[in-house]
Amino acid sequence: MAKLYVIGLGPGGVEYLTIRAKKAIEESDIIVGYTKYIHMVRPLLEGKEIFSTGMRGEEDRCRKAIELSKDKIVSVISTGDSGIYGMAGLILQLKNDNDVEIIPGVTASSSAASVLGAPLMHDNCNISLSDLMTPYELIKKRVELAAKGDFVISLYNPKSNGRPHYLRECMNIIRKYRTSNTPVGVVKNALRDGQKISIFTIENFDDSIVDMLSIVIVGNSQSYIKNGRIITPRGYKIENLGTVN
Amino acid sequence: MAKLYVIGLGPGGVEYLTIRAKKAIEESDIIVGYTKYIHMVRPLLEGKEIFSTGMRGEEDRCRKAIELSKDKIVSVISTGDSGIYGMAGLILQLKNDNDVEIIPGVTASSSAASVLGAPLMHDNCNISLSDLMTPYELIKKRVELAAKGDFVISLYNPKSNGRPHYLRECMNIIRKYRTSNTPVGVVKNALRDGQKISIFTIENFDDSIVDMLSIVIVGNSQSYIKNGRIITPRGYKIENLGTVN
Repeated sequence: MAKLYVIGLGPGGVEYLTIRAKKAIEESDIIVGYTKYIHMVRPLLEGKEIFSTGMRGEEDRCRKAIELSKDKIVSVISTGDSGIYGMAGLILQLKNDNDVEIIPGVTASSSAASVLGAPLMHDNCNISLSDLMTPYELIKKRVELAAKGDFVISLYNPKSNGRPHYLRECMNIIRKYRTSNTPVGVVKNALRDGQKISIFTIENFDDSIVDMLSIVIVGNSQSYIKNGRIITPRGYKIENLGTVN
Repeated sequence: MAKLYVIGLGPGGVEYLTIRAKKAIEESDIIVGYTKYIHMVRPLLEGKEIFSTGMRGEEDRCRKAIELSKDKIVSVISTGDSGIYGMAGLILQLKNDNDVEIIPGVTASSSAASVLGAPLMHDNCNISLSDLMTPYELIKKRVELAAKGDFVISLYNPKSNGRPHYLRECMNIIRKYRTSNTPVGVVKNALRDGQKISIFTIENFDDSIVDMLSIVIVGNSQSYIKNGRIITPRGYKIENLGTVN
């Protein structure tokens, strides 16, 4: 049998896989993915053929997976949701047909939010600070418009050695539109080994603990901290609307 | 034993539950949720006590769940991600302590995206068109800022009998910032019984098929339709940037 799956693992580890994703991995002959992701689902890979490469090998992995899926059952795996900054797009761009099943997963902002409390309860956006394929000017523009619109903002790929100052610069943009007590949550390795949770206000935010494996979530004008968790109410009380401009 | 879980079911049905969510439901004595959600996981509820109410009973359900969880294992369930327009916020707002486990799920925009192709591959935002607790002026402002920022836009609760024209009005706002061939995907009942997929360009978009059970996803300036699926590339080619203003 031949088949191609593109699977979002969620935060990583077997427990937060969907049942559909677990079944697809189990029925696969070959698993294709970044080495680090392969380790996360190691318990399911007994006796399977593995094709893994380093972080920058994404296009190679996708071409290889499409090739292999002509006569085998192949799963391309990545963390989070395969459709949000994942492998689904590249596979569809490179493949000539639609003979592929995309299996969604829990995206990183949802995983991070679940351990921070409930910061994403209202309109929200996901912005990646990686400038590998997006000009930094456009990234900053998006951060500013999201802040202006009082969106809850989830920052993916918030920091790397190549761009240590982007996060601080983007926070300074957001700060123009938020009060100083706006909650900011940082989660490293959400819902997997090495999980680390930090909650700040935008005023005392310290980006030194943030790395590439972290997600940063900035609340909206209604968000608050209670018992060490961030809560964003589902809506707006009219008397609060003054804070939205 | 006493415990409170707030669980996101994902699109609905048992197959797209996370393994963690399934275990939590199985170990629960009492399941609390909107009647329609209860039916979706019916196979897991054998012999369990059920507390369900209609759509508007959310606060009652949460209070009841918190009360019941003092001496039983209780799961509050809702579709999608419990942390995005879900029950997590209300539970934390009403509860005096943090003795609750929030289990994230696949949010509706991820489920819809997985059957549309890969529309969410780049920066994206979720906006609810429900004005029950958010002024319509703020909703329209967000739609405009998201369009201006070239975000991929997922519209939740896109239409109801009480506000039949909001979707068309918001699409007209987005149209000011997108070319006429911008892909628009509509998915009703994504990844569950009654799934219906429609793909348009923003120019020929027809909102008559959209209802409260639908998610509408509007691509960014780089999105395109290939083999009947929507693809958003992961980044920007410099020569394309002229389309982003």
